[in-house]
Amino acid sequence: MSYERPRSSPASDVYPLLIIISGPSGVGKDATLARMKKAEPLFHYVVTATTRPKRPGEKDGVDYRFLSEDQFHQLAETKQLLEWAKVYGNYYGVPKEEIKEALNRGQDVIVKVDVQGASTIKQILPDAVFIFLIPPSTEELANRLKRRQSQPPAELNLRLNKAREEMESLSLFDYVVVNYTDKLDLAVSQINAIVTAEKCRVKPRAVRL
Amino acid sequence: MSYERPRSSPASDVYPLLIIISGPSGVGKDATLARMKKAEPLFHYVVTATTRPKRPGEKDGVDYRFLSEDQFHQLAETKQLLEWAKVYGNYYGVPKEEIKEALNRGQDVIVKVDVQGASTIKQILPDAVFIFLIPPSTEELANRLKRRQSQPPAELNLRLNKAREEMESLSLFDYVVVNYTDKLDLAVSQINAIVTAEKCRVKPRAVRL
Repeated sequence: MSYERPRSSPASDVYPLLIIISGPSGVGKDATLARMKKAEPLFHYVVTATTRPKRPGEKDGVDYRFLSEDQFHQLAETKQLLEWAKVYGNYYGVPKEEIKEALNRGQDVIVKVDVQGASTIKQILPDAVFIFLIPPSTEELANRLKRRQSQPPAELNLRLNKAREEMESLSLFDYVVVNYTDKLDLAVSQINAIVTAEKCRVKPRAVRL
Repeated sequence: MSYERPRSSPASDVYPLLIIISGPSGVGKDATLARMKKAEPLFHYVVTATTRPKRPGEKDGVDYRFLSEDQFHQLAETKQLLEWAKVYGNYYGVPKEEIKEALNRGQDVIVKVDVQGASTIKQILPDAVFIFLIPPSTEELANRLKRRQSQPPAELNLRLNKAREEMESLSLFDYVVVNYTDKLDLAVSQINAIVTAEKCRVKPRAVRL
């Protein structure tokens, strides 16, 4: 599944990449990223800070950095977040220093972020590589959201409407990857191919943070 | 080595691609393409027409279409070549109808062409995907050209100077792939990744012929 890439190091002509992976709520961003971490341990995966409650099975510092609202606001106020937003009543933010350090080490950096966050990062860092995960169909997305038993019906409808709206942000992105149920490896392999291709570009996208 | 791609068919939203593979003389275009044909039989590989003599081991209709000058000029005059040129005293041309038919069938098309030819195609079909193969170093390129025993020393120098000149055409291309000796699979895997990534582009490059 994984394969060799051009060398990535600050000392070479091949720049490390900042890869933004986004998509509507319920598309399977978390599951795809979890699979990618196993297959591609050499990337640096940024851990998003959030005030939302832990879901069963999630680990602090691995899936998210689970913070109190006070802790979160302190990060935001001291400019330690690349972007942050309130989504469905919870705060989410992308730690900046972590990205900078990984890029300086020559590591490719993967950021998982909601569509609103991707849109903000696009304005700050247009040379990042923007990948949009989409479900095979809207019906499939609804099924996935329904399977998340933690969500009451009102929230489900809210999320479905939001997801339909978010699908319209596609044009912000460079690449689109369809996330088929039970075919996570296909999505991971396509994301890998995108990273390799970007490293082969004659005009590399160098992100300066 | 090979992996799944988004479906390519004229009926779907994913357009077939026209992929132009070029590079300086001696970089190993033929060897790379031969390896690709084995690994990726689903592409359509265009067979270049030429008036140059067959090299040992080459097959008519497989490696090239070996034509007389008269046959070649007839193809050129009846507009059956996408581009043609005289290089080192021999004519080379890319058959047009073959590309059109393969794209209409929904097949991705690979064209191997010299740098001059790639430059011409870039003007006619800017939405093709242009990949430049380069040697790891100029010394390595000289060694490879020397190993081709069929070439007299005068022709070797001519080709080396030409190759150095051709290296300056890099900016015409979208992607650059380093062709290491004995690592053909790496180059093939990177070309594959480029094709997959291009198929994931939000704004696909649709070639109209």
